[in-house]
Amino acid sequence: MSDPLFEFLLRQGDNTLVLGHRISEWCGVAPAVEEDIALANTALDLIGQTQMWLGLAAEIEGAGRSSDDLAFHRDVWDFRNLLLVEQPNGDFGHTIMRQFLFDAFQVPHLTALQNASDDRIAGIAAKSLKEAQYHLERSRETVIALGDGTEESNSRMQAALDRLWPYAGEMFLRDSVDDAMHESGIAADPVSLRATWDDTVQTTLGEAMLTIPASDFAQQGGKSGKRHSEHLGHLLATMQFLPRSYPDARW
Amino acid sequence: MSDPLFEFLLRQGDNTLVLGHRISEWCGVAPAVEEDIALANTALDLIGQTQMWLGLAAEIEGAGRSSDDLAFHRDVWDFRNLLLVEQPNGDFGHTIMRQFLFDAFQVPHLTALQNASDDRIAGIAAKSLKEAQYHLERSRETVIALGDGTEESNSRMQAALDRLWPYAGEMFLRDSVDDAMHESGIAADPVSLRATWDDTVQTTLGEAMLTIPASDFAQQGGKSGKRHSEHLGHLLATMQFLPRSYPDARW
Repeated sequence: MSDPLFEFLLRQGDNTLVLGHRISEWCGVAPAVEEDIALANTALDLIGQTQMWLGLAAEIEGAGRSSDDLAFHRDVWDFRNLLLVEQPNGDFGHTIMRQFLFDAFQVPHLTALQNASDDRIAGIAAKSLKEAQYHLERSRETVIALGDGTEESNSRMQAALDRLWPYAGEMFLRDSVDDAMHESGIAADPVSLRATWDDTVQTTLGEAMLTIPASDFAQQGGKSGKRHSEHLGHLLATMQFLPRSYPDARW
Repeated sequence: MSDPLFEFLLRQGDNTLVLGHRISEWCGVAPAVEEDIALANTALDLIGQTQMWLGLAAEIEGAGRSSDDLAFHRDVWDFRNLLLVEQPNGDFGHTIMRQFLFDAFQVPHLTALQNASDDRIAGIAAKSLKEAQYHLERSRETVIALGDGTEESNSRMQAALDRLWPYAGEMFLRDSVDDAMHESGIAADPVSLRATWDDTVQTTLGEAMLTIPASDFAQQGGKSGKRHSEHLGHLLATMQFLPRSYPDARW
């Protein structure tokens, strides 16, 4: 087991890296120009946050690896992102629902992390939080607009929610890494973030005329790295192609 | 411009490599067990043919590269396969239509190539032809069964034909590599193969109750390597992931 702080930082950076890459897949093919640009901006925000998280992870590790090495030269089993963020984009509504479920977690998570006992982490959290708040505002409004839209858009949003719901619970699972971070005054206990998330989600999905699935079954294995879905391998094959194929390439 | 014989061999090997990889994507997810196994066998045949074609290409090149180097360490712009074979699988009917259009070309092409003035090429062609004949028998029968099946299967096969038809014409385009091969007694002029292909295709699609599109517009750029579709890059990213990521890996 590697250093819990390093593991924790990988989780932060891998969430934003993998979700950022997923969102970037919409570039040029989103259903409207404004949405295309908004998604590209969101992707850029997330990749920017990734550079901070993985940069600090590399520094903490002290093994001579850079943030680029961590992003582009690790394989599936070394990734620590939530299963939620590696799920395929599906249709536009599906992408927005995934974003909303994540943003609704990320805002209270980063809010707590602003008070981390480690100044470097508190600093990254404070910078990231401003962007996350804006992402949440946007994804929340879009979930409502589409859910409370036409019959077609409502049924697609409901299908997206049903499909993604089993991937939401992993955000609130606590393990030894979370315990170590909580004990050293860095992060909140993830279990404690659930009430705020539930509140945002219930209010938003209610306004969006969507029904929250009854099951609380939660897929897990992403943040621990024990079991990623096959989708992550395909994502990495594409994302890492250039640095894997041209290891000495420079900008 | 590299040696025309080397270019010609790349075209042979890249067609079977890329189509073989595409077909292998069905492994475990085909609509029926028998089809799953049949497709996996077809993929293995094509990869086996690839080893012979790229093996000879590497020998001719004489630059110390192996067939594996050619398959796994070239990038998009160095591939010489037809655009047809890099098209995505689509649904099962779409995959079978792509296979049929290619098989109907490959059989007369390999038949002529059996008489190549170069014994090594004649030998590979003779071995490959037996497999190609069987592939054509199977893909032809399946095109007919699905085309002359239900209303749903007929409309899917027609959609597949409409989608793929613009990629058929490239097989019969002649360029300087083809001229060089024809002049040195290796391969037939591709233009001369069209009549046999037309005959097979018209008879089969007629029996399959399908309508051949009126347009003769032909996408090109695959076999010359001038312009591949974006699909090839994604295919290579997946196909080459392991040797790119673990360059020193051994079986």
